[in-house]
Amino acid sequence: MNLTMNQLGIVKRNIVRADRVAVDKLSRFGVATIHEAMGRVGLMHTYMRPVYPSAHACGTAVTVLLHPGDNWMMHVAAEQLQTGDVVVAACTTDNEDGFFGDLLATSFRARGAMGLIIDGGVRDVKDLTEMNFPVFSRAVNAKGTVKATLGSVNIPVVCAGALVNPGDVVIADADGVVVVPAAIAQQVADAAEAREANEADKRAKLAAGVLGLDMYKMREPLEKAGLKYID
Amino acid sequence: MNLTMNQLGIVKRNIVRADRVAVDKLSRFGVATIHEAMGRVGLMHTYMRPVYPSAHACGTAVTVLLHPGDNWMMHVAAEQLQTGDVVVAACTTDNEDGFFGDLLATSFRARGAMGLIIDGGVRDVKDLTEMNFPVFSRAVNAKGTVKATLGSVNIPVVCAGALVNPGDVVIADADGVVVVPAAIAQQVADAAEAREANEADKRAKLAAGVLGLDMYKMREPLEKAGLKYID
Amino acid sequence: MNLTMNQLGIVKRNIVRADRVAVDKLSRFGVATIHEAMGRVGLMHTYMRPVYPSAHACGTAVTVLLHPGDNWMMHVAAEQLQTGDVVVAACTTDNEDGFFGDLLATSFRARGAMGLIIDGGVRDVKDLTEMNFPVFSRAVNAKGTVKATLGSVNIPVVCAGALVNPGDVVIADADGVVVVPAAIAQQVADAAEAREANEADKRAKLAAGVLGLDMYKMREPLEKAGLKYID
Amino acid sequence: MNLTMNQLGIVKRNIVRADRVAVDKLSRFGVATIHEAMGRVGLMHTYMRPVYPSAHACGTAVTVLLHPGDNWMMHVAAEQLQTGDVVVAACTTDNEDGFFGDLLATSFRARGAMGLIIDGGVRDVKDLTEMNFPVFSRAVNAKGTVKATLGSVNIPVVCAGALVNPGDVVIADADGVVVVPAAIAQQVADAAEAREANEADKRAKLAAGVLGLDMYKMREPLEKAGLKYID
Amino acid sequence: MNLTMNQLGIVKRNIVRADRVAVDKLSRFGVATIHEAMGRVGLMHTYMRPVYPSAHACGTAVTVLLHPGDNWMMHVAAEQLQTGDVVVAACTTDNEDGFFGDLLATSFRARGAMGLIIDGGVRDVKDLTEMNFPVFSRAVNAKGTVKATLGSVNIPVVCAGALVNPGDVVIADADGVVVVPAAIAQQVADAAEAREANEADKRAKLAAGVLGLDMYKMREPLEKAGLKYID
Amino acid sequence: MNLTMNQLGIVKRNIVRADRVAVDKLSRFGVATIHEAMGRVGLMHTYMRPVYPSAHACGTAVTVLLHPGDNWMMHVAAEQLQTGDVVVAACTTDNEDGFFGDLLATSFRARGAMGLIIDGGVRDVKDLTEMNFPVFSRAVNAKGTVKATLGSVNIPVVCAGALVNPGDVVIADADGVVVVPAAIAQQVADAAEAREANEADKRAKLAAGVLGLDMYKMREPLEKAGLKYID
Repeated sequence: MNLTMNQLGIVKRNIVRADRVAVDKLSRFGVATIHEAMGRVGLMHTYMRPVYPSAHACGTAVTVLLHPGDNWMMHVAAEQLQTGDVVVAACTTDNEDGFFGDLLATSFRARGAMGLIIDGGVRDVKDLTEMNFPVFSRAVNAKGTVKATLGSVNIPVVCAGALVNPGDVVIADADGVVVVPAAIAQQVADAAEAREANEADKRAKLAAGVLGLDMYKMREPLEKAGLKYID
Repeated sequence: MNLTMNQLGIVKRNIVRADRVAVDKLSRFGVATIHEAMGRVGLMHTYMRPVYPSAHACGTAVTVLLHPGDNWMMHVAAEQLQTGDVVVAACTTDNEDGFFGDLLATSFRARGAMGLIIDGGVRDVKDLTEMNFPVFSRAVNAKGTVKATLGSVNIPVVCAGALVNPGDVVIADADGVVVVPAAIAQQVADAAEAREANEADKRAKLAAGVLGLDMYKMREPLEKAGLKYID
Repeated sequence: MNLTMNQLGIVKRNIVRADRVAVDKLSRFGVATIHEAMGRVGLMHTYMRPVYPSAHACGTAVTVLLHPGDNWMMHVAAEQLQTGDVVVAACTTDNEDGFFGDLLATSFRARGAMGLIIDGGVRDVKDLTEMNFPVFSRAVNAKGTVKATLGSVNIPVVCAGALVNPGDVVIADADGVVVVPAAIAQQVADAAEAREANEADKRAKLAAGVLGLDMYKMREPLEKAGLKYID
Repeated sequence: MNLTMNQLGIVKRNIVRADRVAVDKLSRFGVATIHEAMGRVGLMHTYMRPVYPSAHACGTAVTVLLHPGDNWMMHVAAEQLQTGDVVVAACTTDNEDGFFGDLLATSFRARGAMGLIIDGGVRDVKDLTEMNFPVFSRAVNAKGTVKATLGSVNIPVVCAGALVNPGDVVIADADGVVVVPAAIAQQVADAAEAREANEADKRAKLAAGVLGLDMYKMREPLEKAGLKYID
Repeated sequence: MNLTMNQLGIVKRNIVRADRVAVDKLSRFGVATIHEAMGRVGLMHTYMRPVYPSAHACGTAVTVLLHPGDNWMMHVAAEQLQTGDVVVAACTTDNEDGFFGDLLATSFRARGAMGLIIDGGVRDVKDLTEMNFPVFSRAVNAKGTVKATLGSVNIPVVCAGALVNPGDVVIADADGVVVVPAAIAQQVADAAEAREANEADKRAKLAAGVLGLDMYKMREPLEKAGLKYID
Repeated sequence: MNLTMNQLGIVKRNIVRADRVAVDKLSRFGVATIHEAMGRVGLMHTYMRPVYPSAHACGTAVTVLLHPGDNWMMHVAAEQLQTGDVVVAACTTDNEDGFFGDLLATSFRARGAMGLIIDGGVRDVKDLTEMNFPVFSRAVNAKGTVKATLGSVNIPVVCAGALVNPGDVVIADADGVVVVPAAIAQQVADAAEAREANEADKRAKLAAGVLGLDMYKMREPLEKAGLKYID
């Protein structure tokens, strides 16, 4: 079959999105908490940064595979958006051109998008900030792109080192971007909730001066590992 | 002639600055718009970042060629400044030392400078922010420099990958830094204006949910290129 | 002696901290000024950035040597903290994992810490900002760490290219991070004060339009060096 | 299920390896040819380099997920090797420690391995070269690792930006590293063969001075695109 | 005029090449010597590396401006080549795709090219080495490119930080790549010759144990600068 | 004391070199082995690479602190060399200029130097290779340097992330560069010898197909850590 061999030039219309209840629950937690809750997998590279410090996004992935210097497929992706989606754009190579700006942001928002995660560059940072449209990218770049070569929409992509399947939950905040597979979204949301419940108590103890050494009972394992105190 | 062979040690006093009317018009547009209007050339590398997010500068270039770890020529450049100039400083090698701080900013401003673009480091970020003196640099670095080796002022330089001739217009904002040759400043300003006029209408349509696919009539070319929709 | 050969697994309890009066005086000056006052040594690499723009820290170093992906020793360090300390964490290799977050920040603050300098990653940026706990790091990373391998506390470390001995003064602001050896803290503080006294006058002259060329008497040395003015 | 949530600590023993005939056929072609034949997907980042220039490897992937600074799972992986396998090692974070050296190379070779692809560091470069054991890595690093934290063997991994499933074919040469999914190995091998058959003829024509412009019939499309010749 | 504003889509056929005698003379000297002879300007960034260690090229520049992921213009450039030319390829953005391989090398050589300098990626490294066709690039990358968007041939370009005009002399060896403007080629060749004549004598003295301190008469200026010897 | 505050402008003539017998013994072992023997400290960053693959150096450090773009102190250092020394050059900032070439190599060799380790650039790579003078650097750069600003010789320096005191042993090979403090040179040499004796036996077992899992008795700790085998 040619399909598997040539992944460029495909748009998948029907994708299974993660359950909305699970997505909403996940939106209450930070990226660090969710990443821990999932067993420390699914994090994108740390070069993915928000275009403004308070940016936060959580939604179901509509994936895009771009060609360097070419944002044609972003327009194709817009039509596939549903309310609550986050666009996740990867590129067939390392490229920091400005694939996205205020016009596409206007279009994406009108079609229901909650944000954009792109392993490439974006521009119109001032407008995006004023629109409060959350974008996480590897670069800011005023350089625009052509519309000449096909990529794909809603195929599995590797974006900034993380595998993203269409419909997965993507959460992004000041700490980074994490991907939760659709099938375990509810389970991860529950685990995140449990972690967070647990943290308030720890925080209070630490604030009162209790040491992690005692709270986590680390003194014995440290001694066993050979830690030596000297004066 | 020794001149072309040894470009270090020269100060050109009389330079032809871009027309003030064109510069003023260019100052109304963003870097992304101007870069598009010019045919997508003249952009500096994306590592050039503002020292504070709202920094914006537009003016005629007084160029400086620095030696690594040496800012002697910045003082020479100060004397060549006229109101409305932007200092564009390149270095003979990759170097991120702190060539510039609040004292030079005070001097440059007093001489009429509208900002600094430097392919190197700067310091006194807090002061520069409070002064609202726009600086775009490749690094922030507390390390100062010596004053021992000659560079040049107002020779053509390559700054962050872009060729800058003295008198060219340089525009910098949150999206990056772009250089407009003096000879085409008015023409580019007009083209930028035309682009922007065009955008308001597009933005309204996209905000109303019209797809770029339809607005830009992309469906037919996409089909011809072989795009396949699957379910 | 095994001590020098195996620097992992050691906690030094008694360290000689720089004199508090000198530390307090140093806290009044910026990193660039202190770096100059010290003769331009002791600066960390420019990749060390504050997690929020206004972050400022000054204190005596409690040093930590971490293993990649492992923050066990941060908890050991917490017990060694005294009021006025700054934790300086190095790693045995380049690693940007998130070694530190809001819980450790709560603990460090409760034990008297004035901030953290870490040649690695941190997370919970939003919390750290709200807590106003100054952190300077090479990366932001949601990825947490294990607690399995011994490092050390209060041994000399190279952090971001600078040698830090326990008890040294560490000062960090928007311009970077500088280390002042404990033995010369007072002397450097005095020199910084002298430099700054000197600057107000220079600033006033430059603001009035006096050129550095004249104020610093550079015209003669420039001419001797061969500078040529052309028209 | 905990399985999907915690991918650390798992060894999958039975994996479906790509068909040996297809692997052998693929071993006759270069990485660039195979990458083209597959539709330009599956290439690792260009920072993956051979430890000696003539290194070449082709085999079925046994995957390893490592923890930074920890090569425990490399020993676990050794037991899962069969003749004709290539070990593909990813890490839960960016880390360039030396996870692999001549002892592990000796063990891997004894168990049938054809090479190692690792998104991390390796050491004993001189020995590896003398052994002619092909290794492609992101770094050379003398620093060794601990054996303290579980990773996994034979789970899907993202290695240097490419998704690798256990049993996939991995081909590496001076041009880089490419991954061919097991299910399409034969099909890709056939396509590579067809491409190469095609190239000899082209090469002869070009060597005789025929222009690509004519051989590929580019003059008309270039003219349509607006190319202008000036004197 | 549209020409200056849109530099994409142009091929200049008649260019003024540097004098052949001067080019031949320059080919006898190393890049470091020529760079010194020219007054230390015109050097490309150090990321430009030969694809095999002994690669050496010297010739007159035929310049190409590429679009990321698109090598269409390389075929257009082939037709403009004359014996003794070196192709210098820049890109409108940072891009490391494999724009060039053995087929283009075959064509370029057949048309008279002496080598390629490209601020991008190349592939077929093994073939290029066997052909002994010298290529200097910023990356090796198996990923091929499309042929969809116009760039230009024989316009001035900034390649790896150096301005190159068509017809300039480009010299590349293990130390890097340097550009000599056509107008001063003979003058630089003569200066290089003079420098080299001078070096044999110095080398002999240094080999005999004479110190640079004495040979260059540095002791007095060092003492004046304040150098202190301590025991 | 001004000495500690201004480390620029000092040459220390009398340094305590590591014992020659220990240095000679260390020269028999690889960098990876010595680094292990020393407890995994003292390794320079992995960007330090040999200028030719077979380069190997071992000797006592004569340290140099350079100013960016300025190699004046290299000539000062030459006079301080004794047979068996290795020059270790650091810079006050990140700088990749070509501080060193064949003339200095000739001089250093004539004065007894065994090689150069430099956190900067070098040139004349072809000559250095032909001379078989081992150089490990962070870059190759044809750009020369000036002689205008004082650095120091034989003060402690941080070179590529490692602290080097004059007289320490420095060993460099294809795996990297490691620093052994003079005081423990013999002890480390003995430990390295012990390690290596130990390795021949291990290598033989592994070559015979024995698994590290069994040889290092890892099965039980892996099971305790929770490793699960699945089919």
